[in-house]
Amino acid sequence: MTKPVLVIIDPAIKLPAGAERSTVEQSGDRLRLADPDQPQINVTDLGVTRGDGIFEAFGVSHGTVQAVEPHLSRLARSAKLLDLPELDLDVIEQGVRLAAREHEQVPFFMVKLIVTRGIEGVEEPTAWALAFVGDDYTARQQSGVKVVTLDRGYRHDVAQTSPWLLQGAKTLSYAVNRAVIREAKRRGANEVIFISSDGYVLEGPNSTVILKSGDTFVTPRTDQGILVGTTQHALFGIIESMGYATDYRYVEQHELTAADGLWMVSSGQQISAVVELDGNPLDHDHELTQELLKRLVERSL
Amino acid sequence: MTKPVLVIIDPAIKLPAGAERSTVEQSGDRLRLADPDQPQINVTDLGVTRGDGIFEAFGVSHGTVQAVEPHLSRLARSAKLLDLPELDLDVIEQGVRLAAREHEQVPFFMVKLIVTRGIEGVEEPTAWALAFVGDDYTARQQSGVKVVTLDRGYRHDVAQTSPWLLQGAKTLSYAVNRAVIREAKRRGANEVIFISSDGYVLEGPNSTVILKSGDTFVTPRTDQGILVGTTQHALFGIIESMGYATDYRYVEQHELTAADGLWMVSSGQQISAVVELDGNPLDHDHELTQELLKRLVERSL
Repeated sequence: MTKPVLVIIDPAIKLPAGAERSTVEQSGDRLRLADPDQPQINVTDLGVTRGDGIFEAFGVSHGTVQAVEPHLSRLARSAKLLDLPELDLDVIEQGVRLAAREHEQVPFFMVKLIVTRGIEGVEEPTAWALAFVGDDYTARQQSGVKVVTLDRGYRHDVAQTSPWLLQGAKTLSYAVNRAVIREAKRRGANEVIFISSDGYVLEGPNSTVILKSGDTFVTPRTDQGILVGTTQHALFGIIESMGYATDYRYVEQHELTAADGLWMVSSGQQISAVVELDGNPLDHDHELTQELLKRLVERSL
Repeated sequence: MTKPVLVIIDPAIKLPAGAERSTVEQSGDRLRLADPDQPQINVTDLGVTRGDGIFEAFGVSHGTVQAVEPHLSRLARSAKLLDLPELDLDVIEQGVRLAAREHEQVPFFMVKLIVTRGIEGVEEPTAWALAFVGDDYTARQQSGVKVVTLDRGYRHDVAQTSPWLLQGAKTLSYAVNRAVIREAKRRGANEVIFISSDGYVLEGPNSTVILKSGDTFVTPRTDQGILVGTTQHALFGIIESMGYATDYRYVEQHELTAADGLWMVSSGQQISAVVELDGNPLDHDHELTQELLKRLVERSL
């Protein structure tokens, strides 16, 4: 079994404003390889006591860390929504790359980056990057996913009206994102699409929703308290290069069943076709899905 | 400075159904004192990676752990909502009491109990009890709190319609509960009362709301996806013994300003009067608050 690689990161900006930013050389003492099988987190770290932190999950395909800049931008956005101290994205990037480099070079693996608010009372952020072989998504990629739609409980505009609900931040408070997968399994499915309380399509608990309507690929607008999809962003580039149109707009629930194709995309699974929605089979274009999967996996080669 | 005391607990039911439950003697090898200053949690524990776990915070007043049974019942309810394995409440109680006993016997301190889903892929729950001197609430108890009302984003009936949102469970996914306190501070206040998206009074991020209407003390009904308040429960017993009536009902937002008294109660602060609501001063009965505080602190002596 491939052994995970853990890099502990000291992630906060350390230099006064205006001073020279840390360089790769200077970052050395702010990165430290550690044993992932040994306890590394304090019981009063706010990451564990309050789910008070943020994360990103990078795919590493044939040695290349995918979508580094989109992930780091989203991390910075999440940090801002949570009023975390400013993060040193250079050092964090070095930590992610070090974990990827030290990991056994299997064709595809993940690097999960976590930043917490730190130990209560101290509140200097705790951070680490863990490289590991993630879930095997081959079956999903080949045979598709069965999806149920579940109420997210919030209106689609809640990020604007009530920013303290942290919608649009990728936080460690993911108990709901885990609970909905258990609910999906109880219903004989294995994936979820969240619907806003006023009927708009949002996102999956760990993925972005893409639908095809004629020759246009559509994803829900991200001003609805959902995450900017890093894999969706890459996919739209690929799709446009293939001659299709793309669109970010509000998507109503009834459009899911009427679509000419429906997919879930994320760093881990890359892309899977939705083959069943709320118990009803959906048409899907296997060849197109496989072509998109191939281009996504190979995008950085 | 008083040193925190950490007890690591092995919390899952170990015996087959029908076999003799663990006893205090047998629980010995399932409790272990550990150093809270040393890392104790694995980086792949779902408590920290997903906020996937539950907690309770017990007050310890003059050596007595308060409201043990209500806290343990609520823990079991939270565990059920999260589909966690059945917990051995006997062993957990012993762990909480051991932490309390080993802690320096200052007049008031806290024991925080946490149960996570455990290390990803293993998923045997991780649990610990940490005894520590919590925040000093003297100023709040004496001078009251300034409260802002904030939208919780969910309808009041969301626990019934959408149980996968885990409302009513005391989970580790508390990033929002922390964010609203930061929002309150930005607005010149120090506490929050959540309002449902359809206008009902819910709870604080870490406390229960009590209001007085004539000679009746009222708290919002707990079928609105809010927590059963352990301190509220003790307070209602005290209030009834003083000759007041009590009521659990739906409370509309406008009732807050019209009330004859408004309080926040929790294990740590016990009780504080709300003296300002959304920037407007509220009348409050200082003597009554102090009497209730005294009776709450001394209830178990």
